[in-house]
Amino acid sequence: MTSRHNLRDIFPPTGSTLSARNWQSEAALRMLMNNLHPDVAENPHELVVYGGIGRAARSWEDFDRIVAALRALEADETLLVQSGRPVGVFRTHEDAPRVLIANSNLVPHWATWEHFHELDRKGLMMYGQMTAGSWIYIGTQGIVQGTYETFAEVGRQRYGGDLTGRWVLTAGLGGMGGAQPLAAVMAGASCLAVECDESRIDARLRTRYLDEKAQTLDEALALIARWTAAGEARSVGLLGNAAEIVPEILARMRAGGPRPDIVTDQTSAHDPLNGYLPAGWSLGDWRARTESDPAAVMKAARAAMRAHVEAMVGFHDAGVPTLDYGNNIRQMALEEGFGRAFAFPGFVPACIRPLFCRGIGPFRWVALSGDPEDIRKTDAKMKELFPDNAHLHRWLDMAAERIAFQGLPARICWIGLGERHLAGLAFNEMVRRGELAAPVVIGRDHLDSGSVASPNRETEAMKDGSDAVSDWPLLNALLNTASGATWVSLHHGGGVGMGFSQHAGMVICCDGSAAADRRLARVLWNDPATGVMRHADAGYEEALACARTHALTLPAIPAP
Amino acid sequence: MTSRHNLRDIFPPTGSTLSARNWQSEAALRMLMNNLHPDVAENPHELVVYGGIGRAARSWEDFDRIVAALRALEADETLLVQSGRPVGVFRTHEDAPRVLIANSNLVPHWATWEHFHELDRKGLMMYGQMTAGSWIYIGTQGIVQGTYETFAEVGRQRYGGDLTGRWVLTAGLGGMGGAQPLAAVMAGASCLAVECDESRIDARLRTRYLDEKAQTLDEALALIARWTAAGEARSVGLLGNAAEIVPEILARMRAGGPRPDIVTDQTSAHDPLNGYLPAGWSLGDWRARTESDPAAVMKAARAAMRAHVEAMVGFHDAGVPTLDYGNNIRQMALEEGFGRAFAFPGFVPACIRPLFCRGIGPFRWVALSGDPEDIRKTDAKMKELFPDNAHLHRWLDMAAERIAFQGLPARICWIGLGERHLAGLAFNEMVRRGELAAPVVIGRDHLDSGSVASPNRETEAMKDGSDAVSDWPLLNALLNTASGATWVSLHHGGGVGMGFSQHAGMVICCDGSAAADRRLARVLWNDPATGVMRHADAGYEEALACARTHALTLPAIPAP
Ligand SMILES: NC(=O)c1ccc[n+]([C@@H]2O[C@H](COP(=O)([O-])OP(=O)(O)OC[C@H]3O[C@@H](n4cnc5c(N)ncnc54)[C@H](O)[C@@H]3O)[C@@H](O)[C@H]2O)c1
Ligand SMILES: NC(=O)c1ccc[n+]([C@@H]2O[C@H](COP(=O)([O-])OP(=O)(O)OC[C@H]3O[C@@H](n4cnc5c(N)ncnc54)[C@H](O)[C@@H]3O)[C@@H](O)[C@H]2O)c1
Repeated sequence: MTSRHNLRDIFPPTGSTLSARNWQSEAALRMLMNNLHPDVAENPHELVVYGGIGRAARSWEDFDRIVAALRALEADETLLVQSGRPVGVFRTHEDAPRVLIANSNLVPHWATWEHFHELDRKGLMMYGQMTAGSWIYIGTQGIVQGTYETFAEVGRQRYGGDLTGRWVLTAGLGGMGGAQPLAAVMAGASCLAVECDESRIDARLRTRYLDEKAQTLDEALALIARWTAAGEARSVGLLGNAAEIVPEILARMRAGGPRPDIVTDQTSAHDPLNGYLPAGWSLGDWRARTESDPAAVMKAARAAMRAHVEAMVGFHDAGVPTLDYGNNIRQMALEEGFGRAFAFPGFVPACIRPLFCRGIGPFRWVALSGDPEDIRKTDAKMKELFPDNAHLHRWLDMAAERIAFQGLPARICWIGLGERHLAGLAFNEMVRRGELAAPVVIGRDHLDSGSVASPNRETEAMKDGSDAVSDWPLLNALLNTASGATWVSLHHGGGVGMGFSQHAGMVICCDGSAAADRRLARVLWNDPATGVMRHADAGYEEALACARTHALTLPAIPAP
Repeated sequence: MTSRHNLRDIFPPTGSTLSARNWQSEAALRMLMNNLHPDVAENPHELVVYGGIGRAARSWEDFDRIVAALRALEADETLLVQSGRPVGVFRTHEDAPRVLIANSNLVPHWATWEHFHELDRKGLMMYGQMTAGSWIYIGTQGIVQGTYETFAEVGRQRYGGDLTGRWVLTAGLGGMGGAQPLAAVMAGASCLAVECDESRIDARLRTRYLDEKAQTLDEALALIARWTAAGEARSVGLLGNAAEIVPEILARMRAGGPRPDIVTDQTSAHDPLNGYLPAGWSLGDWRARTESDPAAVMKAARAAMRAHVEAMVGFHDAGVPTLDYGNNIRQMALEEGFGRAFAFPGFVPACIRPLFCRGIGPFRWVALSGDPEDIRKTDAKMKELFPDNAHLHRWLDMAAERIAFQGLPARICWIGLGERHLAGLAFNEMVRRGELAAPVVIGRDHLDSGSVASPNRETEAMKDGSDAVSDWPLLNALLNTASGATWVSLHHGGGVGMGFSQHAGMVICCDGSAAADRRLARVLWNDPATGVMRHADAGYEEALACARTHALTLPAIPAP
């Protein structure tokens, strides 16, 4: 058997010297390694990047083989990666991707955690999550802006655009969930986040995503009371189990205690084996029994999730804006027999879809140089490119001030069709002119406008009922491949777990060349355009308008 | 609502004059139209090509839009087709595919016939089968050789390589199943095929795939008795319901009556609504009630399939070689509560996998000229290219003699890695030199070595247990896109129905250009190589040896 445990620490090469044969394969190499950087990955020694067991490679042997293959890869070759294992190198051409990735895909009838775990145990599979197995995870920053946009949107919808003196109740301070306290604070609210693993709380304190730690509920609520009274936006991580504490807060609220202003959750509920601590269990017990008695763990975790969701529905019933934040916890509770699990909405239809209609989503870039100065310069370039976008300027200022880089310096920034390719071409120009210390890569989350089918999350409640149609992400991956992205990925089960999603990723390298200009112009236009196309096809007015503005050719949509 | 009924007859353009801007989009256009040619499609007025409701376009409006989009498509543009509807045209480059297709894909948890039908009724989906929605169906010939190879292999395994005086019992004379009598006869056996729709029997008589028609079982068995006694290989189509007749033949055999030598089936059991006539129902009833009472149809069809499979297991128990021929009928019987449904094997593990290990599968080409002479010349070229392959020569001779062309003249011919690209380059050379009247396209079935995950069929009983891993077909589609195939498709549910398969297609045009040479060399090498890779990864010795012979770079496979 191949191994998943190793004490090596992985750091990507930095600077402007190649360790592979060209910048395209060097980019893939550095981004794979960056995903496993000790400051980036949640559990790098087991190859886990984030999101439960989202891995960057299937085993350490496979990691080494991928690295060796990337170092040897020619400019007209393509490496195939199958669930974290490098399975073939083929002759293609210079405008083709250097790496093509398929992770965790299962024929639907067998697309369950049970079958996945069986294959995983045999060494035949790996869970790729979204950006873990596709090498474009950038640490917790990757989700900060999305979470910030979501909280801010709830503020607009429900609190007149002002979250001062208000607080968010949530749980989970993992790789993604750890963004919640910072995002809340950026949006102007305080935050109480329940987390059962103290080391996760400490990690968020260290990176300044979180302000305080509490050991008891009373302590945490006292802090919240103080901050909200003072109109300060600050955050506290409470050590405990959400399945116990969230119902307790509901009970106190019903008895006249403090009332949260927004309720959500970001435990790894999508993964009932590895992602959610059962009520009443210790962490040690949990870890031990995931190996020795997985069935018992899943049973207990699902029961605890039901209690958690029941409490969330309690808040919803009491009029507190309550959102599923994309971890599929409602589905788990539904399967546990709680018929009202879907009483509260997911965050995409509630807050994000209007952005998707314009191809706006979690665009991001990474300085392969390792030099934070490169991000400072690209931040400035973005402001220069989009002088009138006040929202973007505000975000970039907050991010520069509050966000600690993890691993290779990176920036996230939600922009859409008509903007992304301008950023890409401008960055490539900066590389060409030597203004940046080395090339940059541009990518995005799989959670994006045109790249995902996930009926409990990104495609929940589509206007035409096409939530489960996954032709769209497949076309997105094929088109990005045809357009010349540097690597392209197709995954199953990200975010919401096995059976519940299919999604695609893409990353493209700005190496400063004229060929890269042509590829960037195509890829960074076509990729968000598929999102506009998908939403226009579903009948969204914003998307139809956006398609007209940008003169997209959509043959099945009649001219207005 | 868009329309699915139309009395237009579609004929592809023929000859050497373009109706689109270049031969790549012309090829897609002619092949789409050829799929709906009255001699090719099973029910062209409803856009149905074959295999239950496998369609070429979602509606007639979509057909017209695809044609218009293909006519307008530039040499550096790519058309996206989503479940039979043209949804976008994007700028790519000349080495990229001209069309990218995703048909019938559903997020696994929703990947059922019930959900599909709901979407289909709303006009949001289309069933693409394998080569219907991907425009490379070539009529019944497309399956003749595969069926022939299968019967011949059973002959080798069980009857010392000689099927003289033996007979095959089967059912279904549809688009694919209609190949069975001819394939049996070519392999040296007689054949009794039960078919409930007389027009299908008549169609097979007309094209000489079938020799005789019988109205009663006695009549049919008398013919079989006469032929087998005389050592003649001939075929009879018996009008009737397999769910009634197959059990009846079993009962007679048990009572000392005639014993078939091979039993199989090719009704469209994968589609319980449209594909299998319930026992005791008339055809008219059936067609009417699929619209008015689909639930009742499916219930009755599933019950009938169970009876049919019980009889097949009866033959298997009696020592008669019995095969599932890829229509998922065992799964249906299993779901109906028949625990022994999988007692007999599928045809792939039983007969075809050793071929897949060498990248051998249903390679095919089509003369876009419409001129049968072009196929005669390419047949001769194949013999010239592979002078020592006696099996291939024998096949080509039989095919030339026995197979009536349907629509554009075409040839199927099972060849593998190391052979396919030679054929492609040779044909392209013939086009360049003007030896052929117009370009040809080369493609294959989705049922091929590296392009499908289908645990009840192509990937049944894989050596390493990876039957349900669908990373492989996704990588195949991405790699064919990166290599420059002319069109690439990703489908779900072909052959075995919703939930049970994922698979990829590719077609490439030999337009005689030097650029096509480069693309052909890449695509027709890489495509079968992914099949060798997939089987080598699963541990098959034949595949490992083939990978070594052809010096494939498979990073995770240790040198021997
Ligand atoms: N909405 C989005 O944009 C988005 C994006 C990415 C991920 N997600 C989803 O959010 C979830 C979290 O992702 P992540 O990367 O942070 O995962 P993670 O596994 O890194 O973190 C989950 C955290 O939850 C904690 N936890 C588990 N059970 C708990 C319990 N009962 N009480 C309190 N804490 C508990 C764990 O200790 C861990 O720190 C996943 O389901 C993921 O799929 C959503
Ligand atoms: N093994 C392979 O290589 C392969 C390839 C393609 C298709 N298939 C599968 O084979 C099946 C048939 O494909 P097709 O294209 O011929 O489909 P089709 O729908 O064109 O033909 C099916 C035929 O079965 C007949 N039929 C239905 N119920 C019957 C009954 N109870 N008794 C007798 N006849 C009955 C129908 O009248 C029809 O003629 C499908 O399930 C398909 O997926 C297998």
